Amino acid sequence: MAEAPVIAEVEMGADSSAQVVRATVVQASTVFYDTPATLDKAERLVAEAAALNAQLVVFPEAFIGGYPRGSNFGVVIGNRTAKGKEEFRKYHAAAIDVPGPEVERIAAMAGKYKVFLVMGVIERDGYTLYCTVLFFDNQGHYLGKHRKIMPTALERIIWGFGDGSTIPVFETPIGKIGAAICWENRMPLLRTAMYGKGVEIYCAPTADSRDVWQASMIHIALEGGCFVLSANQFCRRKDYPPSPDYEFLGLDENITPEYVVCPGGSVIISPSGTILAGPNYEGEALITADLDLGDIARAKFDFDVVGHYSRPEVLKLTVNDQPMHPVSFTSAAAGTEAPLK
Amino acid sequence: MAEAPVIAEVEMGADSSAQVVRATVVQASTVFYDTPATLDKAERLVAEAAALNAQLVVFPEAFIGGYPRGSNFGVVIGNRTAKGKEEFRKYHAAAIDVPGPEVERIAAMAGKYKVFLVMGVIERDGYTLYCTVLFFDNQGHYLGKHRKIMPTALERIIWGFGDGSTIPVFETPIGKIGAAICWENRMPLLRTAMYGKGVEIYCAPTADSRDVWQASMIHIALEGGCFVLSANQFCRRKDYPPSPDYEFLGLDENITPEYVVCPGGSVIISPSGTILAGPNYEGEALITADLDLGDIARAKFDFDVVGHYSRPEVLKLTVNDQPMHPVSFTSAAAGTEAPLK
Amino acid sequence: MAEAPVIAEVEMGADSSAQVVRATVVQASTVFYDTPATLDKAERLVAEAAALNAQLVVFPEAFIGGYPRGSNFGVVIGNRTAKGKEEFRKYHAAAIDVPGPEVERIAAMAGKYKVFLVMGVIERDGYTLYCTVLFFDNQGHYLGKHRKIMPTALERIIWGFGDGSTIPVFETPIGKIGAAICWENRMPLLRTAMYGKGVEIYCAPTADSRDVWQASMIHIALEGGCFVLSANQFCRRKDYPPSPDYEFLGLDENITPEYVVCPGGSVIISPSGTILAGPNYEGEALITADLDLGDIARAKFDFDVVGHYSRPEVLKLTVNDQPMHPVSFTSAAAGTEAPLK
Amino acid sequence: MAEAPVIAEVEMGADSSAQVVRATVVQASTVFYDTPATLDKAERLVAEAAALNAQLVVFPEAFIGGYPRGSNFGVVIGNRTAKGKEEFRKYHAAAIDVPGPEVERIAAMAGKYKVFLVMGVIERDGYTLYCTVLFFDNQGHYLGKHRKIMPTALERIIWGFGDGSTIPVFETPIGKIGAAICWENRMPLLRTAMYGKGVEIYCAPTADSRDVWQASMIHIALEGGCFVLSANQFCRRKDYPPSPDYEFLGLDENITPEYVVCPGGSVIISPSGTILAGPNYEGEALITADLDLGDIARAKFDFDVVGHYSRPEVLKLTVNDQPMHPVSFTSAAAGTEAPLK
Amino acid sequence: MAEAPVIAEVEMGADSSAQVVRATVVQASTVFYDTPATLDKAERLVAEAAALNAQLVVFPEAFIGGYPRGSNFGVVIGNRTAKGKEEFRKYHAAAIDVPGPEVERIAAMAGKYKVFLVMGVIERDGYTLYCTVLFFDNQGHYLGKHRKIMPTALERIIWGFGDGSTIPVFETPIGKIGAAICWENRMPLLRTAMYGKGVEIYCAPTADSRDVWQASMIHIALEGGCFVLSANQFCRRKDYPPSPDYEFLGLDENITPEYVVCPGGSVIISPSGTILAGPNYEGEALITADLDLGDIARAKFDFDVVGHYSRPEVLKLTVNDQPMHPVSFTSAAAGTEAPLK
Amino acid sequence: MAEAPVIAEVEMGADSSAQVVRATVVQASTVFYDTPATLDKAERLVAEAAALNAQLVVFPEAFIGGYPRGSNFGVVIGNRTAKGKEEFRKYHAAAIDVPGPEVERIAAMAGKYKVFLVMGVIERDGYTLYCTVLFFDNQGHYLGKHRKIMPTALERIIWGFGDGSTIPVFETPIGKIGAAICWENRMPLLRTAMYGKGVEIYCAPTADSRDVWQASMIHIALEGGCFVLSANQFCRRKDYPPSPDYEFLGLDENITPEYVVCPGGSVIISPSGTILAGPNYEGEALITADLDLGDIARAKFDFDVVGHYSRPEVLKLTVNDQPMHPVSFTSAAAGTEAPLK
Repeated sequence: MAEAPVIAEVEMGADSSAQVVRATVVQASTVFYDTPATLDKAERLVAEAAALNAQLVVFPEAFIGGYPRGSNFGVVIGNRTAKGKEEFRKYHAAAIDVPGPEVERIAAMAGKYKVFLVMGVIERDGYTLYCTVLFFDNQGHYLGKHRKIMPTALERIIWGFGDGSTIPVFETPIGKIGAAICWENRMPLLRTAMYGKGVEIYCAPTADSRDVWQASMIHIALEGGCFVLSANQFCRRKDYPPSPDYEFLGLDENITPEYVVCPGGSVIISPSGTILAGPNYEGEALITADLDLGDIARAKFDFDVVGHYSRPEVLKLTVNDQPMHPVSFTSAAAGTEAPLK
Repeated sequence: MAEAPVIAEVEMGADSSAQVVRATVVQASTVFYDTPATLDKAERLVAEAAALNAQLVVFPEAFIGGYPRGSNFGVVIGNRTAKGKEEFRKYHAAAIDVPGPEVERIAAMAGKYKVFLVMGVIERDGYTLYCTVLFFDNQGHYLGKHRKIMPTALERIIWGFGDGSTIPVFETPIGKIGAAICWENRMPLLRTAMYGKGVEIYCAPTADSRDVWQASMIHIALEGGCFVLSANQFCRRKDYPPSPDYEFLGLDENITPEYVVCPGGSVIISPSGTILAGPNYEGEALITADLDLGDIARAKFDFDVVGHYSRPEVLKLTVNDQPMHPVSFTSAAAGTEAPLK
Repeated sequence: MAEAPVIAEVEMGADSSAQVVRATVVQASTVFYDTPATLDKAERLVAEAAALNAQLVVFPEAFIGGYPRGSNFGVVIGNRTAKGKEEFRKYHAAAIDVPGPEVERIAAMAGKYKVFLVMGVIERDGYTLYCTVLFFDNQGHYLGKHRKIMPTALERIIWGFGDGSTIPVFETPIGKIGAAICWENRMPLLRTAMYGKGVEIYCAPTADSRDVWQASMIHIALEGGCFVLSANQFCRRKDYPPSPDYEFLGLDENITPEYVVCPGGSVIISPSGTILAGPNYEGEALITADLDLGDIARAKFDFDVVGHYSRPEVLKLTVNDQPMHPVSFTSAAAGTEAPLK
Repeated sequence: MAEAPVIAEVEMGADSSAQVVRATVVQASTVFYDTPATLDKAERLVAEAAALNAQLVVFPEAFIGGYPRGSNFGVVIGNRTAKGKEEFRKYHAAAIDVPGPEVERIAAMAGKYKVFLVMGVIERDGYTLYCTVLFFDNQGHYLGKHRKIMPTALERIIWGFGDGSTIPVFETPIGKIGAAICWENRMPLLRTAMYGKGVEIYCAPTADSRDVWQASMIHIALEGGCFVLSANQFCRRKDYPPSPDYEFLGLDENITPEYVVCPGGSVIISPSGTILAGPNYEGEALITADLDLGDIARAKFDFDVVGHYSRPEVLKLTVNDQPMHPVSFTSAAAGTEAPLK
Repeated sequence: MAEAPVIAEVEMGADSSAQVVRATVVQASTVFYDTPATLDKAERLVAEAAALNAQLVVFPEAFIGGYPRGSNFGVVIGNRTAKGKEEFRKYHAAAIDVPGPEVERIAAMAGKYKVFLVMGVIERDGYTLYCTVLFFDNQGHYLGKHRKIMPTALERIIWGFGDGSTIPVFETPIGKIGAAICWENRMPLLRTAMYGKGVEIYCAPTADSRDVWQASMIHIALEGGCFVLSANQFCRRKDYPPSPDYEFLGLDENITPEYVVCPGGSVIISPSGTILAGPNYEGEALITADLDLGDIARAKFDFDVVGHYSRPEVLKLTVNDQPMHPVSFTSAAAGTEAPLK
Repeated sequence: MAEAPVIAEVEMGADSSAQVVRATVVQASTVFYDTPATLDKAERLVAEAAALNAQLVVFPEAFIGGYPRGSNFGVVIGNRTAKGKEEFRKYHAAAIDVPGPEVERIAAMAGKYKVFLVMGVIERDGYTLYCTVLFFDNQGHYLGKHRKIMPTALERIIWGFGDGSTIPVFETPIGKIGAAICWENRMPLLRTAMYGKGVEIYCAPTADSRDVWQASMIHIALEGGCFVLSANQFCRRKDYPPSPDYEFLGLDENITPEYVVCPGGSVIISPSGTILAGPNYEGEALITADLDLGDIARAKFDFDVVGHYSRPEVLKLTVNDQPMHPVSFTSAAAGTEAPLK
């Protein structure tokens, strides 16, 4: 695959025992509709993880910007309500530009606490939103992003569809890191694209807290021969604005603010399918485990999905990783004229 | 595969409740090195399943021919022993030609008991063996076969590698049936090829009885929106020839004939990831469930892996389904001159 | 390869020990320029082999018709002598038509002595000669022929070039039998064509008695996972007409009639490269061995050249097995008008 | 074949005697699990060969990275042990990336000692290993590699399968050089692919020290009309880590460290099948011979396997020399995002 | 080529010296416009040849029916004269039906004098004439015919074009006999069709007496490796009706009846291009030679045009030997109703 | 072949007399085993021909590389001597690569002297030699080549067989030029292939100086309706290395250096079979004639072998002009990796 020179994992003459990486998955809720407060909360959580000596911290899907659980944005077949439209306007306002000031702030956190950071956000690109994951290194640099390529069910009315240009796997000193969001994890070809890029620490920010989610996480660890870090929010009713500002459809109106609307289930799994930490369904938490990177080789000895266990002459995946724009301009310069200073 | 017209499952104007299919997974052991006795046993098991009104019966991997568990065929890196070669010769002799008299016998069973039959066999093609699954309809016709495309670990020294020409999905009156064998089920591109052919009843004959196997089965049901029927052998030491004719490496020599060398774990799972029957780790058994085919649509509403949830402009799988032969002849006739009468 | 039904080697329920075939390689000289006498000698040799209970008898290259060792047919670059042309005329007269009366006589021998027979002949097709091997079954039927596709060196001025339509492998009750002649055995693609047809008993009638020939025979047994039966003539000067009727170029004129002009070296080798009988360099002889057909499976366990050890997606041989005629006629009937009765 | 202009072997007007090349085959053992020490040893051996005026130095299969003789990686049919997996992890750690720092070091050796260098290595590509041969010119440039396309027996669980894109033959001032590894040398189609590229100095790094290996080497020299240089390791028990760190299966536990576990048999053979040096079964050694390149023409006069002795209208090999990847990306850039600086 | 059984030329055990055949070419003129007289003359000539012990007698082109040399049948571009039409009517009347009474008479001659007979005739098929050669055996049987497939120049207005169904080569006890007429001998594909049928005694009835004709005859003998027997008429002015009944265009009106209008040049040539008899330009004559059939093998040793010297994979001639009728009838019966008895 | 527009031979309205081309056939000997000296001699001869205003110069077969007349390369049936193999090695060394530096030099000659040049060479392709004719235009461009498709007799042990891809006819301002070599001229289907490409100036480089060769040349001129230019070497014993370096088999050892070993017989013939110049049997010479291209139409009026005198519905030649390689590679690039710079 990668023909370009890479730094040998193990220095010549070095001891041959494998590297161990401490990773923390954050299971916590967005402060809904309050992005600055959510960023503050994020920083507190990163600091706590750093205090545990975590080298990598993974946040849930849509942590910044929020996952509008229980809402239907006033949509039924053949109709949208004005209230729903206003709801979208507010949701749009809570999202962040990438790059932008919020991205800079998150980068700064990563640098300050010396952690690699994987953060679920709602990205605003004009008037379309994307469910996106941002990546930062432990020097405080923003590395890039993954936009969810296929929203699930009603998500399709609030989020756009990412393209193949943002399915990155970053080679870092603690391993090759990538992310797939929620039910993207069910997409075998997307996962294979990531395997093809050599993902070793596979992050799965999600909003799915069902039991069967654990089966998929275990399967992916086995299939990909990689560590799987699944981060979900743990949310109570009170983490969202109260009714009528925010309506949880299908919930009894009398539920208490403490009612758990999303029980989490964040988990860390090794390449052999062994659960290293979690799943936690109890509350907000930091789920932490030590990843023995040697387990990857031990697992791929049996099964290397894009290596010795592939049959490229029979089954061949082609990934179009070109950005897709509905409008492109023949001049090299970007579509928008330079802003006035 | 089946290009011919098929009977519409549900007549227009008919009651819209979906078809229910009774399926039985056989969890039983080969009579090792005794193919005729194994065929007799197969017939007894089919008869039993038919008595349960099963319409579909799925046997484990290598049921005919046997899964030489615990053997290493005298192989270490850089050496093969004469004993191991003789072991292979006997294993080769126990395998079956496809087509051939054993195939005819299995077809006859399917016809006699009016069941669709999915049978794991060891196929002999000249001097290379393949781990193959055979398909039969309930009229007693042999439909075709799937050859395992990637053997696992030591299997690679006893079995060849199938090509893309034998990855069938058969459209039958009880649904579209296909099979992937053992760790082929871990191959995301192979599964996607089967999804692309519309598999509805996904058979997974296997030799893997570990707990994590269940996770993969659940994941595949969710990913593929299909029923998953996993059949494994339940074997005791006595199902194999006694020592020294057959050596179980790594087992204490003093174990009793009753010692369980493969505990099974056969299971039937619905498209929503619900376990319908099994997993059974207790003994030889018939695991039976009623498959409500309507569950497929219910599941694919959420997630249709090759339908609304695919992104073909980004991720595109190409399946080379041409047969691959190292030697081909320009004349239509087969390579070998006709046998003597 | 062969999709047509074949008789299973091992009957269902039969004892799994493999078949043993007794084979004899004939190391003897043509009675040069005397085809009837050579046929008489052939019959004596077949009778002797049958008395040894041989089931298969293999004769050397050009046994009928003769290998004109030591002759140069008066040819130098740019010239042919009248004497050389007359030599060719006599050689042409000693050759046999296929089919024809000599073929019928050889078939009768095979039937009388109940042996499969592989016989090297010089075949006359009009005025071009071919170095051909004929195959007969033990019922006295002529099965077909292999024409040498590439004569070596000076042979190219006396023999034509066979095409791909006569590279047979015959499936018989004693195994799949084929033949390559002399340095054809050095042609890797030709050998692979035979492997592709499943050859199990690989006959190598030859005229090469050098030491390195043994290396090639051992290599082919290993490469093809087949028995190799190499038959060479053992000839003394007196087996050829005396000077000046027949000149041995490069030989001292005073050599005695007993002088050995071809020392034989006939040999039988197992699929594991073990020499079972021969090489014999002492005199005319019958070289006999028992071939344990189970050795084929034992050998192919390690290496099956057209099975598990092939890479058809990388390396693919195409064999044009259509007959090639410089002139063809649209009518089915033969080119020449029927002979007078 | 090669339509591109080539440098005439013999300058116009030059003396017509052919070039003589001194070649050395290295018969020595890896320092197992210690790649830096093995590289040091390689340099000492290259220096010694250069002192003998060798222009070409050929090392055995897997010299860098090691041939894990006698190990079974804890594998039986249906099971892998944790110990075996850890063994693989260590073996994986001892392998080298290509390109990478070890490759640079070997290239530097070739340049320093002014030799063409053919080096067997274990190549690491992600988590799949390949048994690879690297080629270097006498100016210190890495030329390219050949990945073994078909591992033998248990090798199939530790090494992947190369494709048709790495079957090079390099045209150099000392002749056209290529390599086939161990039992690849038994693959007639692979050899023919190399013949088709015009190989003149055919290197056969191997791990096979049996007598019959010599037969194959002689046969290949005759078949290909090329020099054959077979390099095998000579290993004693002490060249591997002591028990229990490294277990030699099948060996008596009480064997001495001096016990020979691989006796070598390295050899150099001329195109006429004449043994020029070796086979040596005595100890670590440099096997050296002068290759009279004129012998190639002398041999091909008789038999030019892809020239006058081919029948392309009957037998035609097609080599798919395209790289095969299970996943490909439409952008030119490599799959993995650039590493952090 | 000919797969059907043939009688071996040389009996088993017979002396290997080759057969010699005495052949006579008749150089004589038609009695123009007088077919019965011409038949009488033919019989006299056959009797004379038989007296010389000829076994084969070859007559010139159009001996029966006549070659209307010097006539233009009143034809210029754009016009035909009534006189020319009458001339054609008389020429048509002198022609013979095949079969028919004249054919029976010629057959009787052959039987009476025990010669194989090759006779040039003008064949009448309805109102189209063909320049035809008839073949008879020495038992008095009519064997078949060859119709000239391409008339030359003005011949195209008096003769039709034969098709591929009448290009026979007859296998006889004195060799394989065929014929090409006049400039047909210049047609390389027609000659090759005859070579493809194995012609050994190549008859060339002609009307060409130029010097260069001899070059073509020698060339064909060399090219075909066959005996060439060219028969031309020797005609004086008086052999044609006198003016004005018959006008010789371009001849001085005062020429004497003795004037030679066709000087013959009949010749017999061996397969090595040696002239055995003729060419005779002196008068009517019987040209006789002994054909040593062994010369064929001696010549084909060097060059066998459809055997060892062909390249069927490059150059392939297809001969459509089906009869071509402008009108055919779906019923099996011939087009014409059965004649009344 | 040449699809590009050509200059019409005769302008409309121009005087209708046809173009006359002066052509020279070179009758001279190779300087055997000294290719540079032979090239020097070629240049002198071209210069002389140019001084005679020749527009086309045709050299004999194998002029560059040499025709090893009288040698037998130590070959008898069943044996090759070491001396013969060394002879081949030297002959191989004297051959030239196409393209290559010698080809460039010959092209330069053609350009310098403004002649179309047809040059017989021995072409080296790896280790197989071909008897080849090279074509050059009068601008100094190499146009292409014809490889002899069927060597004669002993030539088959030193030269390979060309395929159908190199049977060119080049359309040039002086007519359509092609070549057949020596006894290829006896191959009716090959000649017809050239007629089918419209050859007008048919070059016949040869090594045959017998009288009957003249008959074939005249016949071909008549048959093809083309000019025939036959070029043969005139060689004395001294043109070859002295004994024992070079042995003339069949020659008295005491012959003088002046003894004529090949008397030439080069000739130029018009389409009507008229000899325009030669045959010369006296010594080295330039045989020159003016070719009136109008003679082609004059001749084809009577006989146009692929035009009005063909019968395609009966006789159809198929020419396979695809190159035939025993090994082909799917990538466009040549088989061998790029040479070192």
